[in-house]
Amino acid sequence: MEQPIGVIDSGVGGLTVVHELMRQLPKEPLIYLGDTERCPYGSRTEEEVKQFTWEMVRFLLKKNIKMLVIACNTATAFTIKDLQEKLDIPVIGVIKPGARAAIKSTESDYIGIIGTEGTVRSEAYSYALWQIKSDIDLISLACPRFVPMVEKGILDGPEAKQIVETTLMPILEHKKMDTLILGCTHYPLLKDTIQEVVGKQITVISSSEETARETSTTLDIHQIANESDRMPLHQFYATGDLQIFIEITQKIFKDSNFEVLTIKHADLHNV
Amino acid sequence: MEQPIGVIDSGVGGLTVVHELMRQLPKEPLIYLGDTERCPYGSRTEEEVKQFTWEMVRFLLKKNIKMLVIACNTATAFTIKDLQEKLDIPVIGVIKPGARAAIKSTESDYIGIIGTEGTVRSEAYSYALWQIKSDIDLISLACPRFVPMVEKGILDGPEAKQIVETTLMPILEHKKMDTLILGCTHYPLLKDTIQEVVGKQITVISSSEETARETSTTLDIHQIANESDRMPLHQFYATGDLQIFIEITQKIFKDSNFEVLTIKHADLHNV
Repeated sequence: MEQPIGVIDSGVGGLTVVHELMRQLPKEPLIYLGDTERCPYGSRTEEEVKQFTWEMVRFLLKKNIKMLVIACNTATAFTIKDLQEKLDIPVIGVIKPGARAAIKSTESDYIGIIGTEGTVRSEAYSYALWQIKSDIDLISLACPRFVPMVEKGILDGPEAKQIVETTLMPILEHKKMDTLILGCTHYPLLKDTIQEVVGKQITVISSSEETARETSTTLDIHQIANESDRMPLHQFYATGDLQIFIEITQKIFKDSNFEVLTIKHADLHNV
Repeated sequence: MEQPIGVIDSGVGGLTVVHELMRQLPKEPLIYLGDTERCPYGSRTEEEVKQFTWEMVRFLLKKNIKMLVIACNTATAFTIKDLQEKLDIPVIGVIKPGARAAIKSTESDYIGIIGTEGTVRSEAYSYALWQIKSDIDLISLACPRFVPMVEKGILDGPEAKQIVETTLMPILEHKKMDTLILGCTHYPLLKDTIQEVVGKQITVISSSEETARETSTTLDIHQIANESDRMPLHQFYATGDLQIFIEITQKIFKDSNFEVLTIKHADLHNV
């Protein structure tokens, strides 16, 4: 099926999911929509997050998507059940793929989760993990400094390392923890720095990589993978300032072929 | 849904998948059926493998399974399409989960696959990989000495290491290979030895771990996961000699609670 996969996010973090989708599923055309104008969602009310998410979904449904990926932890936590019930196409979020990968990885059954305040407060990861395996021990930590840092492009170097070290201190005391979930789609851009700080003995799970992998499984189960060998064209939309969005996109996709993607402004008021 | 997941294999190799299912999905009751009497399938004709597999499937359908896992590479290669078309329950095999995990893991796009002669000859992994990503380079190798070695319980130590080293020599020359798929459900029992021989720079993918993970995704998509917290009871069946089967089971499940499983003889002639 040559129809595109739709990917939504509150801003630019979901681009790490897109990057992984392009790497792991290079035949699939993608449409990305980032609500950069109203980002971040982490501190919004549940009602607002639901309303904004539905506006994005309606925009993408008009583009004839065959599947929806909610590439935002906050939006996943608040809307996935509703979207899965009401849409005719498969819908996946970023939380369960990360939870499943962590369960596969852990030997001590002691898992750490870092995310935005909204995601940590929602306890969505705890619920996803305990639904599958009741005797998992969890330690979660909100890292409010990470998203602004990424948006400023501070991904490595001494400043990044110092912020990551200071922030993660409280969970590093838990010596039994052997797996750490990056429960925010911005964080994979800090993965190398985080791995350096936590040490090699801890497996760092990128929800972006894992979500791309489960997208592959989902396409397969629903028999809607693209079997054509034509080079796919990707479309990126943002609701806010395009200049900043293009700059961040270029940073994330520095190794990619820019000819296969177009970047446009999306107006959600007229959907 | 408290109905069991059915797991079939030509012999005992599929028990590594069961072990991972018990670890990653501890709430799910399992029924395992190993066709130990007619093992190995690797050198059987396609017709024989199909007939034997259908006999096993009919046996498990009578036990009211909610999902089927084909925990044997050879049986997956020859029967999965047919089973997926004809059964009303979800069916997954061991090949695609391994292929997807390898695509996620590789950075060089150079993947190695080891398996039985039947699996390597079937080119099922090449097909699964190229269907998703066309520009993957593959090197495959049949390792006919590994299954007899595992069945004899030679899993580590100098003898195991020497056999693994000699066998894997031809693929270790391919310096770009960064990921190696264990394309036989017996091989995870040799994982530590294989990892030692190939070195830390190569990611070794256990199709058993990955299949358990995709079982979790599949239960979720079909909304048939068990939500009860009752301790599940597992049933193991073998068509051949029970004594040897019990010994191998005890070896694989040495860390498990044996009170939760029963082992019985299965007669496929009267299904």
